[in-house]
Amino acid sequence: MVRDLRDIYLKEDEYLNCEVTVQGWIRNHRKQKEFGFIDFSDGTTFNHLQIVYDNKIDNFDVISKFHIGSAISATGVLVSSPKEGQKFEMQASKIVLEGDCPEDYPIQPKRHTREFLRDLAYLRPRTNLFNAVFRVRSVAAYAIHEYFQNKGFVYFHAPLITASDCEGAGEMFQVTTLDLDKVRECKEVDYNKDFFGKQTALTVSGQLQAETFALAYKNTYTFGPTFRAENSNTKTHASEFWMIEPEMAFCDLDKDMDIMEEMLKYIVSYVMKKCPEEIDFFDSFVEKGLKDKLTKLVSSHFIRVDHEEVISILKKADIKWEFPPEYGEDIAKEHEKYITEYFNGPVFIKNWPKDIKAFYMKQNPDGKTVAAVDLEVPGAGELMGGSQREEDYDKLIRRMKEMNMATEGLDWYLNLRKYGGCVHSGFGMGFERLLIYITGVENIRDVIPYPRTPKSCDY
Amino acid sequence: MVRDLRDIYLKEDEYLNCEVTVQGWIRNHRKQKEFGFIDFSDGTTFNHLQIVYDNKIDNFDVISKFHIGSAISATGVLVSSPKEGQKFEMQASKIVLEGDCPEDYPIQPKRHTREFLRDLAYLRPRTNLFNAVFRVRSVAAYAIHEYFQNKGFVYFHAPLITASDCEGAGEMFQVTTLDLDKVRECKEVDYNKDFFGKQTALTVSGQLQAETFALAYKNTYTFGPTFRAENSNTKTHASEFWMIEPEMAFCDLDKDMDIMEEMLKYIVSYVMKKCPEEIDFFDSFVEKGLKDKLTKLVSSHFIRVDHEEVISILKKADIKWEFPPEYGEDIAKEHEKYITEYFNGPVFIKNWPKDIKAFYMKQNPDGKTVAAVDLEVPGAGELMGGSQREEDYDKLIRRMKEMNMATEGLDWYLNLRKYGGCVHSGFGMGFERLLIYITGVENIRDVIPYPRTPKSCDY
Repeated sequence: MVRDLRDIYLKEDEYLNCEVTVQGWIRNHRKQKEFGFIDFSDGTTFNHLQIVYDNKIDNFDVISKFHIGSAISATGVLVSSPKEGQKFEMQASKIVLEGDCPEDYPIQPKRHTREFLRDLAYLRPRTNLFNAVFRVRSVAAYAIHEYFQNKGFVYFHAPLITASDCEGAGEMFQVTTLDLDKVRECKEVDYNKDFFGKQTALTVSGQLQAETFALAYKNTYTFGPTFRAENSNTKTHASEFWMIEPEMAFCDLDKDMDIMEEMLKYIVSYVMKKCPEEIDFFDSFVEKGLKDKLTKLVSSHFIRVDHEEVISILKKADIKWEFPPEYGEDIAKEHEKYITEYFNGPVFIKNWPKDIKAFYMKQNPDGKTVAAVDLEVPGAGELMGGSQREEDYDKLIRRMKEMNMATEGLDWYLNLRKYGGCVHSGFGMGFERLLIYITGVENIRDVIPYPRTPKSCDY
Repeated sequence: MVRDLRDIYLKEDEYLNCEVTVQGWIRNHRKQKEFGFIDFSDGTTFNHLQIVYDNKIDNFDVISKFHIGSAISATGVLVSSPKEGQKFEMQASKIVLEGDCPEDYPIQPKRHTREFLRDLAYLRPRTNLFNAVFRVRSVAAYAIHEYFQNKGFVYFHAPLITASDCEGAGEMFQVTTLDLDKVRECKEVDYNKDFFGKQTALTVSGQLQAETFALAYKNTYTFGPTFRAENSNTKTHASEFWMIEPEMAFCDLDKDMDIMEEMLKYIVSYVMKKCPEEIDFFDSFVEKGLKDKLTKLVSSHFIRVDHEEVISILKKADIKWEFPPEYGEDIAKEHEKYITEYFNGPVFIKNWPKDIKAFYMKQNPDGKTVAAVDLEVPGAGELMGGSQREEDYDKLIRRMKEMNMATEGLDWYLNLRKYGGCVHSGFGMGFERLLIYITGVENIRDVIPYPRTPKSCDY
């Protein structure tokens, strides 16, 4: 019977002393005169299996020449292992080559740099690091769905191609079926001839559309790709990334923060429980102290403090800031770091100056701030941002005019305030930012299977 | 205490004779001299709640003027209801207006056509039909994740912007940051100046990239958006839709079909269990017999039959076909319908003529067919398509040449066959096609929150 290593490791005791067949790949291969040792993995778990064979096996000479990277089937009994760190190994009675691999296979059992592996993105999930990263990506994605579905939130697939721009400022990718060579020959660009009969682009956020679902289902969330055509070549920017954007009706900023906190703890706990080997690996080889960081987060009480107070704290600090903190202004990375250290844990910074925030945020009675919140976590800075949404039709229109925003094309969004609108809130979390936090891997290119960045679109 | 209707209906007995507060919207409002009856929904469940108030309530005159569509909070005791079809109703002690709604609110408690509601896509989830459709969409999406995650499949986020074209034939949307007005002024289109330094488009399938994950994790699945710039204005075509594309290593066509069958039954069972009210509603008002259809599917054994045999059956049939069936050719809708009726259940049609199938499909020893499969289900036709993938490097290259396909840019895909390649298979299912099948709603525009179709990109 063919078994996944995952099943075997989930029920170790059941499988001990049983004969099984496994199918997967040779990660390493040591041969001696009378014995061979295959470091075997089938990718279904972070754990490998040691397969031992001796010269009594059929085709000993053939098997002992199997290359690293080859696909094999191996049958044998799982016996207790004398080797430390593994409960059992397989004493193979049969090993069959399923797919060969040449000796110049680029993924050899040695340390490869992440830059080298980035160029071989299609092979890197076969290495321990990336195998762990992309499994955690999968498990964390599921944790997000489980959290919201258990609470009855409706999963909303926001449209990707759009004719509206959420933030009013995002740099967007244009989507077109116009033949650019032919466009060159025309007097002007005729969008009537484009696929949708107008100019369209890839979405930068599904929030506005998600609000329409919140006012129908009370609680909704998106989880889908978003795009930014920003020409930033940094460790934290990608042109294509996944976002989670929950929206809740009858929910004010306090309840919004409750959900942000509960969701984050749920995801981190879930990943720690389901991927203990992966987390141990990151803790040992990627970010020392990662496990403590995550454990502490889960048991923290997240502090809630006004932006104004944060600035006061920063101003009082005996530090020479590169960017001096100012009331009414945004805060810099150095401030984020200081403030999480000051409170020794995650901090919600709330009630931000309205002039540095988006048009749709709820205007506070002070006339200066909006009911917006950013979550700052130790070691990662801003992890999520949210706000109560302005539910007052007139105030919203006025704010858009102040910001020189066109209201045309957004009548549906504005109408939500007329047709049974109510207090509602939401937030957004970049999925890759979360993964960087959970895995300790620093570069966003290393938590996306096939990253898209300026001048780079391979595979 | 504020409670979601969902929670109340999940634990009806606990809540009976308790005081609760609910927050949601007025769907209908009948007033009498001494009583008022509000048909209330908060969107968290398909079920509504009848809220009864009498003239002893504060502000009786004000409340009795509340408009349909308004957001309210209502507090009261849940008492057994004499009315058929509802276990309890609320005797309200307090009703507060949270958000008004004008009398010309377009969603009135009467039958609206689907075409009318399509133009009001942002309000239609507030109607019973669309509330049910998009909740089922959410629940079905979760069922898919649950099915694969329970089996240890790794969820793979395929890239959306791509420089390669999976089928070699799909009509694609171009993605660009070139300024089309400026392109007009240039001698030629210079893709070096485009965002990625080359011509890029929106993906039509994540399969090829998913294969790289299958050969690392053994079992993987995608669930994400895909795009087709096909100028088809039919009930079943959308330009942006979601696909599920599982890929499994060490898996032949038979095992592929096992998973297709098991997955479909899992999703349908899950939705029937979690959304019984929605399914009853579809059965009564959308497609008579829907529930029987789904129940029968779940208990069916799916027949497996070769394409060649299907053609023989069709040829023998005493029917004057609009499109005469031919060996070596594709089958038409009328044939799909006949064959599911012939076998009285779902049918896997396998081993298709190679010339009408994609280059990556496993070539059978007969030299004429490939190990491809389509699943035909009664009442819906083709629901999924899959194949064993060609794992032989030379055969794959030869086939690509025969089909005049360029291999450049696909070296990574071809290399999968060199580097420990093995027997592997996968399939694809259009998520919206599944939803059309499960809900009985015929038009793809009615199962996507904000559909994109030729000349139509609103919201």
